[in-house]
Amino acid sequence: MAAVTHPYQASAMIGVLDHRYYGRDPAAAARIAPYLSEDGFFQAMLKVEVALAEGLAARGLCERSVADEVRAAAAQVQPAEVHAEQERIRHPVMSLVNCLKRRVCDTARPFVHLTATTNDIVCSADAYRYREFTRHVLLPCLIELQSTLLRRAVEERDTLQIGRTHGQYAEPITFGWSLAHFASRLGRAIRQVHAAAEDLRGKMAGAVGAYNASSLFFDDPLSFEREVLARLGLKPSPLPTQIVEAEYLVDYTHALVSAFGIVANIADDMRNLHRSELGEVEEHFTADHVGSSTMPHKRNPSRFEAVKSLWKVFMPRMATVYMDQVSEHQRDLTNFESTFFVAEVAAGLYFAADLLGKTMATMVVRRDLMRRNFDDAAGAIVAEPAQLLLSVSGHRDGHETVRRLSRQALAEGRNLADLLFADPTIAERLRGLDERRLAILRDPSHYTGICSPRTAELCAELERDLARLKSTLADTQPH
Amino acid sequence: MAAVTHPYQASAMIGVLDHRYYGRDPAAAARIAPYLSEDGFFQAMLKVEVALAEGLAARGLCERSVADEVRAAAAQVQPAEVHAEQERIRHPVMSLVNCLKRRVCDTARPFVHLTATTNDIVCSADAYRYREFTRHVLLPCLIELQSTLLRRAVEERDTLQIGRTHGQYAEPITFGWSLAHFASRLGRAIRQVHAAAEDLRGKMAGAVGAYNASSLFFDDPLSFEREVLARLGLKPSPLPTQIVEAEYLVDYTHALVSAFGIVANIADDMRNLHRSELGEVEEHFTADHVGSSTMPHKRNPSRFEAVKSLWKVFMPRMATVYMDQVSEHQRDLTNFESTFFVAEVAAGLYFAADLLGKTMATMVVRRDLMRRNFDDAAGAIVAEPAQLLLSVSGHRDGHETVRRLSRQALAEGRNLADLLFADPTIAERLRGLDERRLAILRDPSHYTGICSPRTAELCAELERDLARLKSTLADTQPH
Amino acid sequence: MAAVTHPYQASAMIGVLDHRYYGRDPAAAARIAPYLSEDGFFQAMLKVEVALAEGLAARGLCERSVADEVRAAAAQVQPAEVHAEQERIRHPVMSLVNCLKRRVCDTARPFVHLTATTNDIVCSADAYRYREFTRHVLLPCLIELQSTLLRRAVEERDTLQIGRTHGQYAEPITFGWSLAHFASRLGRAIRQVHAAAEDLRGKMAGAVGAYNASSLFFDDPLSFEREVLARLGLKPSPLPTQIVEAEYLVDYTHALVSAFGIVANIADDMRNLHRSELGEVEEHFTADHVGSSTMPHKRNPSRFEAVKSLWKVFMPRMATVYMDQVSEHQRDLTNFESTFFVAEVAAGLYFAADLLGKTMATMVVRRDLMRRNFDDAAGAIVAEPAQLLLSVSGHRDGHETVRRLSRQALAEGRNLADLLFADPTIAERLRGLDERRLAILRDPSHYTGICSPRTAELCAELERDLARLKSTLADTQPH
Amino acid sequence: MAAVTHPYQASAMIGVLDHRYYGRDPAAAARIAPYLSEDGFFQAMLKVEVALAEGLAARGLCERSVADEVRAAAAQVQPAEVHAEQERIRHPVMSLVNCLKRRVCDTARPFVHLTATTNDIVCSADAYRYREFTRHVLLPCLIELQSTLLRRAVEERDTLQIGRTHGQYAEPITFGWSLAHFASRLGRAIRQVHAAAEDLRGKMAGAVGAYNASSLFFDDPLSFEREVLARLGLKPSPLPTQIVEAEYLVDYTHALVSAFGIVANIADDMRNLHRSELGEVEEHFTADHVGSSTMPHKRNPSRFEAVKSLWKVFMPRMATVYMDQVSEHQRDLTNFESTFFVAEVAAGLYFAADLLGKTMATMVVRRDLMRRNFDDAAGAIVAEPAQLLLSVSGHRDGHETVRRLSRQALAEGRNLADLLFADPTIAERLRGLDERRLAILRDPSHYTGICSPRTAELCAELERDLARLKSTLADTQPH
Repeated sequence: MAAVTHPYQASAMIGVLDHRYYGRDPAAAARIAPYLSEDGFFQAMLKVEVALAEGLAARGLCERSVADEVRAAAAQVQPAEVHAEQERIRHPVMSLVNCLKRRVCDTARPFVHLTATTNDIVCSADAYRYREFTRHVLLPCLIELQSTLLRRAVEERDTLQIGRTHGQYAEPITFGWSLAHFASRLGRAIRQVHAAAEDLRGKMAGAVGAYNASSLFFDDPLSFEREVLARLGLKPSPLPTQIVEAEYLVDYTHALVSAFGIVANIADDMRNLHRSELGEVEEHFTADHVGSSTMPHKRNPSRFEAVKSLWKVFMPRMATVYMDQVSEHQRDLTNFESTFFVAEVAAGLYFAADLLGKTMATMVVRRDLMRRNFDDAAGAIVAEPAQLLLSVSGHRDGHETVRRLSRQALAEGRNLADLLFADPTIAERLRGLDERRLAILRDPSHYTGICSPRTAELCAELERDLARLKSTLADTQPH
Repeated sequence: MAAVTHPYQASAMIGVLDHRYYGRDPAAAARIAPYLSEDGFFQAMLKVEVALAEGLAARGLCERSVADEVRAAAAQVQPAEVHAEQERIRHPVMSLVNCLKRRVCDTARPFVHLTATTNDIVCSADAYRYREFTRHVLLPCLIELQSTLLRRAVEERDTLQIGRTHGQYAEPITFGWSLAHFASRLGRAIRQVHAAAEDLRGKMAGAVGAYNASSLFFDDPLSFEREVLARLGLKPSPLPTQIVEAEYLVDYTHALVSAFGIVANIADDMRNLHRSELGEVEEHFTADHVGSSTMPHKRNPSRFEAVKSLWKVFMPRMATVYMDQVSEHQRDLTNFESTFFVAEVAAGLYFAADLLGKTMATMVVRRDLMRRNFDDAAGAIVAEPAQLLLSVSGHRDGHETVRRLSRQALAEGRNLADLLFADPTIAERLRGLDERRLAILRDPSHYTGICSPRTAELCAELERDLARLKSTLADTQPH
Repeated sequence: MAAVTHPYQASAMIGVLDHRYYGRDPAAAARIAPYLSEDGFFQAMLKVEVALAEGLAARGLCERSVADEVRAAAAQVQPAEVHAEQERIRHPVMSLVNCLKRRVCDTARPFVHLTATTNDIVCSADAYRYREFTRHVLLPCLIELQSTLLRRAVEERDTLQIGRTHGQYAEPITFGWSLAHFASRLGRAIRQVHAAAEDLRGKMAGAVGAYNASSLFFDDPLSFEREVLARLGLKPSPLPTQIVEAEYLVDYTHALVSAFGIVANIADDMRNLHRSELGEVEEHFTADHVGSSTMPHKRNPSRFEAVKSLWKVFMPRMATVYMDQVSEHQRDLTNFESTFFVAEVAAGLYFAADLLGKTMATMVVRRDLMRRNFDDAAGAIVAEPAQLLLSVSGHRDGHETVRRLSRQALAEGRNLADLLFADPTIAERLRGLDERRLAILRDPSHYTGICSPRTAELCAELERDLARLKSTLADTQPH
Repeated sequence: MAAVTHPYQASAMIGVLDHRYYGRDPAAAARIAPYLSEDGFFQAMLKVEVALAEGLAARGLCERSVADEVRAAAAQVQPAEVHAEQERIRHPVMSLVNCLKRRVCDTARPFVHLTATTNDIVCSADAYRYREFTRHVLLPCLIELQSTLLRRAVEERDTLQIGRTHGQYAEPITFGWSLAHFASRLGRAIRQVHAAAEDLRGKMAGAVGAYNASSLFFDDPLSFEREVLARLGLKPSPLPTQIVEAEYLVDYTHALVSAFGIVANIADDMRNLHRSELGEVEEHFTADHVGSSTMPHKRNPSRFEAVKSLWKVFMPRMATVYMDQVSEHQRDLTNFESTFFVAEVAAGLYFAADLLGKTMATMVVRRDLMRRNFDDAAGAIVAEPAQLLLSVSGHRDGHETVRRLSRQALAEGRNLADLLFADPTIAERLRGLDERRLAILRDPSHYTGICSPRTAELCAELERDLARLKSTLADTQPH
C-alpha cells in the first residue's frame, strides 16, 4: 500500500526528506513507509479499529463475526478512498470509519468504532507505529552504527593519538578510546530510545477521557481499555483527556533528539579530524566521486557534514513538542498538525544514523598521520606527569617550575624532557622514580592511562548489551 | 517538469507538508512546484548556468552561439537524468553540469560553468527561486488574506465588542478595530517579506569568494558578476566566501517566521472567540462536514487550530537558520542540507496563510452574541471613564471611590452607573460634564474611543499599500 | 557565605530572575543560594577538593593530616578572595586551588588538587549541587504543589463540570478529575526529575578523561575515582573525555523543562477557566491588591499568566543544552559559559512551581458557575450517549439521526433529550434501556463516566508515591 | 540610583550574567545599569510619567506647575520605596504612580498617570530604554569591535593565507580579506540593530488601545499621543491593543540575535585558526595567565570559546520573543515576565561583543605559520587555474586531466605545477598565456583574486559608514 514505486516522484515534492533521502533510497523507503508515511498512519489506525472490534466481540457486545468482518474490511481499504471521503466530510478518522462501514453488513456497522472517539484511534495508532518503527527500523539502524563503532574502537584501541582540548594538544589517548567514548554514549542513547518507545501509550477512554461512552456498556471500562490495547502490545494512559498525556511522546522525541546529538558529535569530530592540517581520518572515496566542481584535489568530509547539518534541522523541533504539552482543558486541536511532524524527526534520525554508520564503516584511519601529529605534540606533553611526580616527590612548586621550563622549551624549540633531566634539582627528584614512571617521562607515548584495557573492557560490555537488545527485538512478536 | 500528476502519490511520502497539504491541493502544488520542489531547484540552477553562459558570451569570452546552445540544453535536461548522474558522481552541481555538457558541442563544452564554483550556482539559484516564489505565490496569498481582513474590518468597524485583557472584560472596542489591528501588523509583515525577498543575493565569486577564477579572465570580476546576476534580477553579495553571507537568508526566514506569528495570532484569536461561552465567531460549516466522530453537535474551530498548529511546527526552525550563520573559514558544508529546509518554512507559511484567508473570508460573525457579551460586561465598564472624569473634576480619589463602588455593584449585582449617579458627592461632580461624556457614563456602548473612524482611515491606507504592491508585482518581468 | 543580605541590591542587577524573583523573596533566596548562586558553586567545588584530599589520604598517598588541613582551609576561603585571584590568573579553578594552597603547610600543598584537572572539579561540583538543589529545594517545592493538587482534586471529585475540547462544550467531567489528570502528569514528572538528578555523574579522570594522571599513582584509577566521588554520593561517568558525557545534564534539563510544561499547562488551564465568560475559578485577591491601574473592576489571573510566561522564557533554553552535546575531540570550551545557565532553568522552574502552588492553594472554585456553564451545555450533551445506545440497539444510523436532531435542537433552542423522546422510532429503541442509562439520557449530569471513583483511587495512589518520596528524601544524608 | 557598589554582591546572585559578567566589570555595569537593571527600568517609567504630565500641561488640561511637581517627584522616588509599595498592592505601575502621587499636592494628584494604562507606561519605557541602551552602550561597543576588525583587515590585506572550505585547503586568500568579510557582515548588522532600535514604538492609547480614555479629554487623541511620545523621541504604535504590536521588539531582538551570530562566527573562526595544527592566530596571554591547571604548556582560545558559548545561550531565546507575538484579544499577560528577558539578550550581546573586540584587538597574527600552511597546500592549488585556462585554451577535458595529474602529484608527493609543465600537450597550451597567468601557475601565491584591493576599498567604505554613524549618535540629544 505504501510502496514508493519510482524514486523520482519524490523530486516533485517539497518535503526535503522526501526528495533528498526517502525518495532516493528505495530500500530505506520500503522499510520506513509502513510506519511513517501517511499510508502507514492509515494502516496503523485500521489496526486500532480492528483491535477495538475484537475487544467488543471478546466482551460479547457483538458477535465474533462482526470482528471478522471489520478485520476483512480493514485489509481492503485503499488510501485514495479514504482521501476522497476526507475531502467530502473533512474529518480524518470518520472518513476511515465510513470506509470500513461501507464494507460490513448492516448488523456489524454500529459496532465499528463503538465507544471510541477520534483520538482513541489517533493516539493509539501513533503510539503503535512509532514503537513499531523503533523496533523494526530505527533500533536496527542504531545497532548497526554501534556495531561499527565497537569494531573500530577495538581495532584502534592501541592507536596512539594526541588528545585535544580547546583544539589544543593535550595529553595522549588512543583513537580506539575516543571511539569507545562515543559508543558508551550511543549505547545509553539506544537504551533510552528503546525504553521511551516501549512506554508510548494508547487510550480507549472517549471524547474527554472520562470513559463516558465505554461506561455505558462496561462496568470496568479501564479493564476493557487494557484488553483492547493489549492486542496492539500497548499500555493505557494513566489518566487521559481526549488525548494521551503529552509526556510519553515528549520523552520519546527527547530520546530521538538526544541520540541525534551524539550522532552529530561523532560526525563533527570526524569532520574535524578530516581537516587538511590534521588528516587523521578520511571518508572513503570512490574513483568516480567528484570532490569539487573546480578544485579537483579536494577530499571533502561531505557525509560527516551532511550528518551534522541534519542535526541542525531536527534538534530545534523539540520546541514544537514541548509547546504541545500545553493544551487547553480536555484538549484543543492546536497539537494536531504539529504531532504529525514527530515522524519527520524519527525519519531524520534514521537517515543521519544510517549515513554515519556507512561512512564510519569504510572510513580510512591514517595511523601514520596520527603518529605524526602526536610527535609534533610530544615535546610538551611531559609537562603534566613531570609536574605531578615532582610535586609528590616533595618539590616546592612543581607546577610553576614546569610551566617555566615549558615556555623555555617552546621558545627555544627544545624538548621539555631534555630540559627537565638537565636541571640538577629536578633530576635529583626524578632519580627516585620507578621504571614505569621514568619511561613515561622519557617517552610520552606511554602516557595513555587506561586507554587500551578500558576500551577493550567497555566495548565487550557494550557488545553484550547489543546482543541482549537484538535478542529482545527478535523475540518481539510483530503486531 | 515538476507537475504532481496524482495527489495520492504524496500519501506514500513521509514529509507531512507533502502528504497533508501539497499533495492534497493540486492547484497549490502546481503553483509551488516550480520554486520549492527539488525539480524547481534544478530549474533554478539551470537558469543560473544559462545566465552565466550568456554573461561569458556578452563579454566575448565565447561565441554567442555557445550561450544559445547552453540555453537550448537547459530546456532539455530531465530530473531523472540529473539524479542518475548524481548517483554516479555524488556531486549535486557537477551532475547537472555534466548533463548540460553532454548536450553541447565540443567548442561550447569548456564554457559551461566556466569560472563558477558549485555555490555560485546553488546560492544564486536559491536567491532566485525564493524571490520568485515570494513574488508569484507567497505575496499574492498574503495579499488575499490581507484583502479579506480589510474587507471584514471595514464591514465590522461599528460592531460593538467588549475588549478583553487577561481574558477579562475590559473596555469597549469594535470588532472591526480588532481586525484592523491585525491588518496593520500584517501589512508591515508583507512589506518586510517583500523587502527581504528582493534583497536576497547571488554570487559569482568562485570557490573561496575571492574571484580567483574570474580574475583569470576579467580585469573587473565584480562587474562581470553584476552583469551575470542582473540577468536573474539579482544583486551580488558584498563580500562573500564560498557562499553568500548567511544574513540575507536569515532575514528572509525571519520575515517569514515573524509573519507566521501574526497569522498564528489571528487564528488563535478567532479560535478563542469561537469558544462555546463566547460564540462571537464561527467557522463556516458545510452540510457534510462532521465536527466530531462521537459528538454530533460539535462546531470546532479546526481550521484556526490547524493554522496555529502549523506555526508551532515552523517557528522553532528559525534556530536552524541562526545556527547556519556560523560556518568555518570560507565555509564548511554543515549548512548544506539544512538550507534546503527554508523551502519548507516558506511553504508552511503559504499553506497556513491560505487556510486562514479562506477561513476568514467565510467566517460567520455573530454580532448578536458580541452584543450579548458586551451587555454582560457593561455594568462594570463605566468604572474607567467615571474614575477619570471624577479625578479631573477635582474629586479627591476617583480611583479608590470607583473601585469601592465597583465591588459593591459586583457584589449586589447592580449597575455601576446607577450607583455613581446615586451617590450625591459624585453626582454633583458629574453634573458639570458635557453631553458626550454624560452619554458615555450612561451608556458605555459609546465608549469606543476612535475605533470606527480610525479603522476606516487605516484600512484605506492599507488598501492603498496593497494596490501599490500589486502594481509593483504586476510590473515585475518574470525572470 | 551566600547570604543575600538586602533584597534591593538585586534591583541593581540585570538578571531578571535576580531582580524579579530571587531578590524579592529572601526566604527562597536563602534556600537557593547554597546551590545555584556563584558562591554556592564555589562551595560545591571546595567540597570536591576536600573529597579528593580525603581520597588521597585514605589511599595513603598523603598523611591524614593533609586532608584535615585542606578541609579546614576550605571552610575559610572567601568568595572575594577567589575573585581577586581569578582576576589575576584568569583561571576559574586554579584560583580556588591557590586560595586553598595558601592556607595549608608546605608538606600539604602538593596534594591539593593532585591528579585532578579543572573539569574533574567543575563537573563533579555541578552534579553535586544540582542533585542537592533537587533533593532539598526543588522536589520539596514540587511536592508541595502536588499535595495541593491532590487535596483539591479530592475535594472537587464530584464537582460537575462541562468538559471542553477545541474550546467547545464536549462531555461531562468533574473538576476534580481534571485536576487528577494534572496530578498524574506531575507525579510522573516528579519521578523523572528525581531520577535524573540522582543519576548526575562526577568524574576524577584527568585532562583528557583517560586517567593519565591518576594512573601515575594508582593501579586502579577507576576504583580511586569511585571512592572519591562516593564521598559526595556521586557515581562516576562511564567513559568521559575532559568532561562528563553531556547526556546526564541533558536528561536532567529535559526533566526540568518537561515538568515546566506541565506546570505551564495547569496555569494556562486555570487562566482560561478564569475568563470573564467562564468564571469557573478565581485567583484569591487580597483587599489591597490592585487589578488594573485604570479598570478597578478587573480580576486578572496575573499569577497564572506569570507562570505561563516563565515557561516561555525557559523552555527554549533546552536548545542550548542540546547544542552542548557537540564538543570537539576531548572537549572544546564552548560549553563552559552555557552550562552555567542550567542553574537558571532550575531556578526558573522553582519559582514558577512555587508561585503556581501558592496560587492553586488559595484559588476560589466557583461550583455555581461551573454548574451554570454545564447547564448551558446540557441540552446538546446527550447526543453522544443517545447515538451510542441507539446504534447498539440496532438503529440503522444513530450518528446521522442524532446529528440531525442536534442541529434542530440548536436551531430551535430546544432540548435534544426532548426531541429524542418525542421521536417515535427512537423512543421505541430507548424503551429497552435499563434505568442507569435512561437516567443519563434524561439528565446528562449523570454522564460523568468514572470521574469520581477514579479520581479518588488515583489520588490515593499518588499520595502514597509522595509519601514514599518524602521518606526517601528524609533518609538522605546531607552531603 | 542604579549603582553597583561592590561587585561581589553579584556572586550571591543566581543570574549568570550578573555574577560572571556584570558583577565582575564595574565599569560596564555602570554603563549598563541605567537601562537594563530593574532600577533602570523604574527610571525609564518615571521618564514616561513625566512626559505624560508635561503633555497634559502643554494641552492645558492642567497647570504647568503640575508637570513641574511630577518632574520633581520623579527625581526623588527610590527603588526601595517602589518595591515596598509593590509588595503591598501587587501592581508594578500603580506602585510607582502611588509613590509619585504621595509627593505632589492635592491639585496635582489626579493628573499623575491621567489617561494612561499600565502598558502605556511599560511599553513606552521599554522602547525608550532599549533605544537608549542601543545608542549609548551597545552601538559604541559594536563600533569598537568593527573598528578593530577594519584596522586589522587593512593591516593584513596582503597576508597570504590558504582559504579553507569543508576544512580542506582550497584556494588562496589573504587574512585581511577574511576579516573584511566579517566586517562587511558586521557593518550590515550594525545598521540593522540601529534601525530596529530607532523604530521601537511607544503608546499612549489606553487599556485596550482604542484611546477610550484620552478621547474623553481630546478630540485628537492620536496627536496627543504623538506629542507625549515625542518628548521621549519615540514614534507611536500604528494601531495598538493594550500593548504595542509585538513585531517592533521582535525585529529588535532578531537584529540582536543575528548580530550575535556574526560575533559567534568570528570567534569560532579564530578559535579554529588557533588549533595546535593551524596556529595561525593566538589570543594574547599575559605572564600570569594560567592556561590549564594541569597542562602548563596549553594556550587555549578561552575568550573566543566564551564568545561562542554565550551565543549558544542567547540565540535560542528568540523563540520566546516569537511566542510573545501570540497574545489573546487585546492582550493577555503571558508576555509580561518574558518580555523582561529581552534585556538579558541585549546585555549578553554587549558582553560577547566587548570580549571579542578586546580579544581581536590584541590577538597575535602568526604570518609565518599562515605562510607555512599555505606552502603545504600550494602543491595542489594550481589545479583550479590550470584547469580553467586549459579549458578555455581549447583543451578537450581540462577538468579530468588536471584531476588525474592532481592525484598523481598527491600520490607521488610532487608539485602539480611541475607535472603540468612536464606534460607536452599541456605545456603547449600553456605557452600561449600572458605573463600574469603564467606567474599564477608557477607560483600560486599570486592567485589571490581581488583580495588586496577589494579589502582596502570595502574597509574604506565601512570606515565611512562608521564615521557617519558616530556622527549621528553624537548629534543625538540624550533624552
